[in-house]
Amino acid sequence: MTEMPEPMQIPTNPSNSLATALRQRRENLAGSIDMPVILWSGKRKERNAGSPFPFRASSHFLYFAGLPLEDAAIRLEGGKLELYMDDPNPKGILWHGEMPSRDQIARAIGADAAFPKQELQERSPLESTATIPLQDRAVVWEQNQILNRERPTELDRDLAKAIAAIRLCHDDAALAELLQAAACTVQAHYAGMVSTRNANTEAMVRGAMEGVIIANNMQCAYNSIVTVRGEVLHNDIHHHPLKSGDLLLADVGAETQSGWAADVTRTWPVSGKLSPTQREIYNLVLAAQKTCIAKVRAGVEYRDIHLLACRTIAEGLVALGILRGNPEDLVEMDAHALFFPHGVGHLLGLDVHDMEDLGDIAGYEESRVRSDRFGLCFLRLDRPLRPRMLVTIEPGFYQVPAILNDRANREKYQEVVNWDLLAKFADVRGIRIEDDVLVTEAGSEVLTAALPKEPNDIEQLLG
Amino acid sequence: MTEMPEPMQIPTNPSNSLATALRQRRENLAGSIDMPVILWSGKRKERNAGSPFPFRASSHFLYFAGLPLEDAAIRLEGGKLELYMDDPNPKGILWHGEMPSRDQIARAIGADAAFPKQELQERSPLESTATIPLQDRAVVWEQNQILNRERPTELDRDLAKAIAAIRLCHDDAALAELLQAAACTVQAHYAGMVSTRNANTEAMVRGAMEGVIIANNMQCAYNSIVTVRGEVLHNDIHHHPLKSGDLLLADVGAETQSGWAADVTRTWPVSGKLSPTQREIYNLVLAAQKTCIAKVRAGVEYRDIHLLACRTIAEGLVALGILRGNPEDLVEMDAHALFFPHGVGHLLGLDVHDMEDLGDIAGYEESRVRSDRFGLCFLRLDRPLRPRMLVTIEPGFYQVPAILNDRANREKYQEVVNWDLLAKFADVRGIRIEDDVLVTEAGSEVLTAALPKEPNDIEQLLG
Repeated sequence: MTEMPEPMQIPTNPSNSLATALRQRRENLAGSIDMPVILWSGKRKERNAGSPFPFRASSHFLYFAGLPLEDAAIRLEGGKLELYMDDPNPKGILWHGEMPSRDQIARAIGADAAFPKQELQERSPLESTATIPLQDRAVVWEQNQILNRERPTELDRDLAKAIAAIRLCHDDAALAELLQAAACTVQAHYAGMVSTRNANTEAMVRGAMEGVIIANNMQCAYNSIVTVRGEVLHNDIHHHPLKSGDLLLADVGAETQSGWAADVTRTWPVSGKLSPTQREIYNLVLAAQKTCIAKVRAGVEYRDIHLLACRTIAEGLVALGILRGNPEDLVEMDAHALFFPHGVGHLLGLDVHDMEDLGDIAGYEESRVRSDRFGLCFLRLDRPLRPRMLVTIEPGFYQVPAILNDRANREKYQEVVNWDLLAKFADVRGIRIEDDVLVTEAGSEVLTAALPKEPNDIEQLLG
Repeated sequence: MTEMPEPMQIPTNPSNSLATALRQRRENLAGSIDMPVILWSGKRKERNAGSPFPFRASSHFLYFAGLPLEDAAIRLEGGKLELYMDDPNPKGILWHGEMPSRDQIARAIGADAAFPKQELQERSPLESTATIPLQDRAVVWEQNQILNRERPTELDRDLAKAIAAIRLCHDDAALAELLQAAACTVQAHYAGMVSTRNANTEAMVRGAMEGVIIANNMQCAYNSIVTVRGEVLHNDIHHHPLKSGDLLLADVGAETQSGWAADVTRTWPVSGKLSPTQREIYNLVLAAQKTCIAKVRAGVEYRDIHLLACRTIAEGLVALGILRGNPEDLVEMDAHALFFPHGVGHLLGLDVHDMEDLGDIAGYEESRVRSDRFGLCFLRLDRPLRPRMLVTIEPGFYQVPAILNDRANREKYQEVVNWDLLAKFADVRGIRIEDDVLVTEAGSEVLTAALPKEPNDIEQLLG
């Protein structure tokens, strides 16, 4: 058995806080653009014959409509909200129970009016209406049909900039959801650590972690990484056995029903005890992470936090004797990126890499572009931090064969790496430590601070 | 963190059993059609910005290619297999690790040749090549482009019939996978029952069940139903609290890495103890299920098993006094369908409703069509059973307000339902009991037989 949409819980109190928060969001939008806007929620996607993936509404839609409505659209103009969706098919009652009507939903989200979906085409001026194209060919086609155009327009780009500016900093309603996602994720990682003692495979730890997320009636915000091969950055296979000397890297995050995400990584020893070499590197990554978090505050450039992570890692590796030279110079020549080849983090919100459907419009301050430097090209965020931005701080250390065995890298970095000493650290494949950090005027608040990361605390938990 | 494809485990022994099984499958296909065939695996679908759903290859592709290859195609002609896919992008190594090459995969699946994907367009005669269109607009468009046509053709229909005929009965390789999925699903339901004692919500039981599936490195074959509102047939919300008098209906099934599914339902009392009314109806549904399973064997019409379920339920309801009259007559007038408004089951294989992407081509014997009778229109399978078919047997009893309060139903069935007595059974919202049953020459084998369903056994487990 399986099929189609799920009914949803909707607030029944018409003066509810969801409606209030949504009103503020669209007033913010009206304050920065003039044209009418239509946002689509998207359609359920099929997984295999007759069996759909769970529905996930577009994040931009969720931001302004609040509820994961299927195959719906909203039209925003001058702070007014119109809802376009069809009433539930009465034949669906047998399969899905009583579903809320369009009018009930409209009241819940504080819409000014509600219409059947097909009336969307009758609203004018469609030519000067902007949208955010969904990244789904079928829906984009429908969007262009309805808007009577062939492709996205310059207006869409203006809208993307306006929405990015608003979504960059989270309001109270968003923070309440983000806190819930963070709390559930902390619980999931706890369960993962505790489960390790009796687990034989990566999958068993993943089951313990995702089981907690599901039990909290949330979903995974992204495909979980739970791996003893931490050097494969987006490793999403889980069949490896757990062996006593392994480190297990778990990058797992929950998402609330209305789409707000957490994104957390911990790395822990399968045996419950770090080897001396693992402890050295773990402490180095942890020091970099804590140093960076301490630096987070409004006004600071996120790029500088990234470079601070690079420098701290380079310093640590020099202290261990793995790198040779002056840390500043080593970072300048991207030597840190041999071991830390990604950015220190990214925006977090309704998407785990928030608003990356807009390219770098959200991540990069206007007029800035990505560097092509080996040590900077993966930096996903390059803006001065502002209060209520939520970012991840996630430095790491990895021994990626494709990087370390690359002939050009071997030549370029022959003298600065002590390759013989590095060989003694072979039991450190990959370590990443990641928390979700809210920027405040005075500094920051770590939403996932309740989750242990000190080696002693983790060893005790695994004990 | 998150992103794109996952590497996979591929058999390294060139004379492997996967390759042998696949060769037999395509020889079967070559035995029934002449035209060349191209099958696409499909593309990864986006969930939200930059974050994809886990990839699920098309079931027809999986059947003939064995591995969940992403964005690949196979061409079958005269028993020969050609693989079309691109080698992994070397830049992906950092994110995904070393991925198997096209040639390695070709050897693993016993392909006769392997080419880059774009060479597919150069194979002729494309006009007389058949395919199974994927139900994804973007891919269908690409398929039609490559096949130089505007829409599916009559040849596609011939191919669909040929593939359905082959996939209806499972070979040994398929059965080995189906048994694994069934065993994992039994374990998941066990865990669900045991977890109920300490669970406050539907979601907590779901978490325990899906956690087991994930821990076994499998995935859910469909969106789980775990609900105290069993009368909503495809209820996939999970926020309800569990209350002492509730029945919990759990319809949850695992799917192996290569796509083979299980589909199992159990219903149990939250308190650990069925009320007298719940026990009466539970025993009635269980009797219907066991009677139907006992009837399964090669040569029997599945429709007759459905009608047997209807009759057994009608008899039981007459015995309880809820229905009045002769059971045969009651079934004839669809009175059973007031309480059992769906079919007794369906085909099971690579899809949970196997091959329903082909409409009724797989489910209905040639020249048969669906009835429009209230009591028969949801029957998904109407064929004589054959050895190695796998079917579900899942009778149920539900009190669906939309059916029981419907004015026309009230009038039509006024005299045959004892409405006052029915009101005493208000604590039975929905009960379904479902097992996966393999048809054999002599009878059947229940793949999920290890999972308790007798009231006493379940009550003991819930203890």
